[in-house]
Amino acid sequence: MKKPVIGITIGDPSGVGPEISLMALENKEVLESCAPVLYGDSAVIERAAAIVGAKREVLLLDDPGQAKEGKINLISLGAPERPYEFAKVQGECGRAAFAYIKKAIEDAMAQKIDAVVTGPINKEALNAGGINYSGHTEIFADLTKTKDYAMLLTGGGIRVIHVSTHVALREACDRATKERVGTVIRLADSSARGLGVKNPRIAAAGLNPHSGEGGLFGREEIEEIIPAIEEARAAGLDVTGPVPPDTVFVKLLNGDFDIVVAMYHDQGHIPLKLTDFMGGVNITVGLPIIRTSVDHGTAYGKAGKGTADESSMVAALRAAVQLALNR
Amino acid sequence: MKKPVIGITIGDPSGVGPEISLMALENKEVLESCAPVLYGDSAVIERAAAIVGAKREVLLLDDPGQAKEGKINLISLGAPERPYEFAKVQGECGRAAFAYIKKAIEDAMAQKIDAVVTGPINKEALNAGGINYSGHTEIFADLTKTKDYAMLLTGGGIRVIHVSTHVALREACDRATKERVGTVIRLADSSARGLGVKNPRIAAAGLNPHSGEGGLFGREEIEEIIPAIEEARAAGLDVTGPVPPDTVFVKLLNGDFDIVVAMYHDQGHIPLKLTDFMGGVNITVGLPIIRTSVDHGTAYGKAGKGTADESSMVAALRAAVQLALNR
Repeated sequence: MKKPVIGITIGDPSGVGPEISLMALENKEVLESCAPVLYGDSAVIERAAAIVGAKREVLLLDDPGQAKEGKINLISLGAPERPYEFAKVQGECGRAAFAYIKKAIEDAMAQKIDAVVTGPINKEALNAGGINYSGHTEIFADLTKTKDYAMLLTGGGIRVIHVSTHVALREACDRATKERVGTVIRLADSSARGLGVKNPRIAAAGLNPHSGEGGLFGREEIEEIIPAIEEARAAGLDVTGPVPPDTVFVKLLNGDFDIVVAMYHDQGHIPLKLTDFMGGVNITVGLPIIRTSVDHGTAYGKAGKGTADESSMVAALRAAVQLALNR
Repeated sequence: MKKPVIGITIGDPSGVGPEISLMALENKEVLESCAPVLYGDSAVIERAAAIVGAKREVLLLDDPGQAKEGKINLISLGAPERPYEFAKVQGECGRAAFAYIKKAIEDAMAQKIDAVVTGPINKEALNAGGINYSGHTEIFADLTKTKDYAMLLTGGGIRVIHVSTHVALREACDRATKERVGTVIRLADSSARGLGVKNPRIAAAGLNPHSGEGGLFGREEIEEIIPAIEEARAAGLDVTGPVPPDTVFVKLLNGDFDIVVAMYHDQGHIPLKLTDFMGGVNITVGLPIIRTSVDHGTAYGKAGKGTADESSMVAALRAAVQLALNR
């Protein structure tokens, strides 16, 4: 079996991304399971290699197909335009980070790589560099022209996909429509299969406390969520719900379900961060390409020090390999 | 030091309440720390004693002051009106459970007992019995004529107090007002002190994801929560926030804070249930009397079998003793 080729965008040069990318390449499991190719810049990578003590030779590639075992394979896209500092919002770094992502998406769309794993970027740095996206997910959706996508988080036994993410809680209530909940239930099924679950048992959480208790505290369950669940069941999916939000994750950890459909950002993020603060993986599902990511930011407090924790990057690589093999 | 006298309402006779109340009385820590007095009925208690194998003599009291060590001290209030079944919604059981609560509240208001610990009731049984309350908290607030109260949960290292509880998520957004958040911050401070924290470090969570990210996803932080925090700080309280909802509980468990002010039911309940599904304690704060409770329902599936877990009842008794001693 040919190993999947995984593109790793090293993230904002000013954060921990370059360091954790290199640290993850030292991981035996990563080396055995895939052919990793970094998307970054040679000056940034050499600086980070010195910091983390990475010994292998950096091989500059024109094409990811040229990757060689035992090397640090790099698609180099040009340095940040001025010498950059660690741990600081800099437009140059935002522009550089965006260039890595854009190239990796192009190569994934052209099937030159099997998946993209993204290192952390800084939204303010993007904006300071004139790149007007609110984050990775929006960049991937836009550049791949995807409408129906969702954020899936895994880690610490939790596997959760979100009906909405970065919107006000009031707007999250508006977005829990029958149509969107139905879409995310379908994405839950296909992505759980991609992650190796044979017959995914999906739990759709309620929106309101106690799932609204029969309409006493909110009617979204009755008007939107239950109809979406019924339609998904009629289409053959194994969906239970609405399950009260405060017990659904306990049941997931007990093995009653394989994946939870969360109705808003914090319903899914609170349990994930509690069970796996450092090793979580963020997966954008619904794209025509595979994209996984670390579930943390640029961690400026640790940038340039070689003290960052690469667990989340390793877990993101593991998930990308799994998704590529199950594609 | 005189031991606090703790009234325990045994809950709905048809659920696990009578059994876990008796099981908790066998707990050495409970026996050493307080003088427990049950509020229930002799027929119900004798039936439960046979089920759990409680050997001590039941002593019927007219007044909690007559309690004796080594006995099962009971204020008996008359049986459910017909023979009752386990694990079934019955109006008679709802009425009986309400009678126990009402008497315990009267005795607490008259300072005959130092705290009330409540066993689980069934809302449908209350309603079937013509008692129109949605739960314990509302009964306690009404019978003690309390306006400003809040639900506090503790367990598994989590200590969280709620700005709102059993309302739709949309209404929870409306209820996160400066006034109410300020009230709950003050209740967080006083109740944490009651639970033995010397100088409570309070974290007020945001309402929106990332606490609204400076107004990008919701303005409640800017318009309501931050002004409430600033006012509380000016009054000398140690409050941090708004802290992003998905990391505030990780920080609490790391020891950065002593208590979290959650903006809605599931923001506090999801982490509590994950860290301590069986042993959580529910405390109504702001009342003129002390009230703690098990954090689970009547558990009909286990009622009458002697298989219920009394951990939450023991934890509720421990919290009641602590609050009584720090009063």
